[in-house]
Amino acid sequence: MSTSNRTDSLPAPSTYQIDDEIFETIIDSEGCKIERIISKGHHSPDNFWYDQEKNEWVMVLKGSAGLRLENDKEIIKMMPGDYINIPAHCKHRVEWTDPDIETIWLAIHY
Amino acid sequence: MSTSNRTDSLPAPSTYQIDDEIFETIIDSEGCKIERIISKGHHSPDNFWYDQEKNEWVMVLKGSAGLRLENDKEIIKMMPGDYINIPAHCKHRVEWTDPDIETIWLAIHY
Repeated sequence: MSTSNRTDSLPAPSTYQIDDEIFETIIDSEGCKIERIISKGHHSPDNFWYDQEKNEWVMVLKGSAGLRLENDKEIIKMMPGDYINIPAHCKHRVEWTDPDIETIWLAIHY
Repeated sequence: MSTSNRTDSLPAPSTYQIDDEIFETIIDSEGCKIERIISKGHHSPDNFWYDQEKNEWVMVLKGSAGLRLENDKEIIKMMPGDYINIPAHCKHRVEWTDPDIETIWLAIHY
């Protein structure tokens, strides 16, 4: 997928199913961790909320997803290019991701 | 462009010319600065090299660009989804960006 041996690239969309979400750490530095997550129809378990020590800035690169923040009635629909900043300890969960194609997230924990 | 008032989104491609590259800081934290850069036909001035104090991880989200690292003969062509990690003080320059559509970069300085 890379256009050069000096770069890396996103995986191409595919039709296969993936059992578990794929978490890949791209950069892991003291103040900054860059992570790529691939989901396909996955969502957070019922009644589960992420509650994280660090801030998280997250963008959907491909696919689509529904994100819920605690105390928000509405599910936030995220499409490619949409991003949101989730402050530390702002509880959140993924309500849904596209069942037909991979949803690729870029997450920056800082 | 946003699908929700809780998220922000990339700008839509447009046909207008932009005089100068647009630099927008999205997150500015101690260990992590997230920046969006919009180029359209821009490139680094002749003989200019970026020489940065921090590491920079950069992804092309839309458009395309040619990046050169010092001591590399080849120009690295970057397409949407391609990313590269540029260590601090690794001199680099942008040789070209697509003249017809915006090239949108996501840059993480850490």
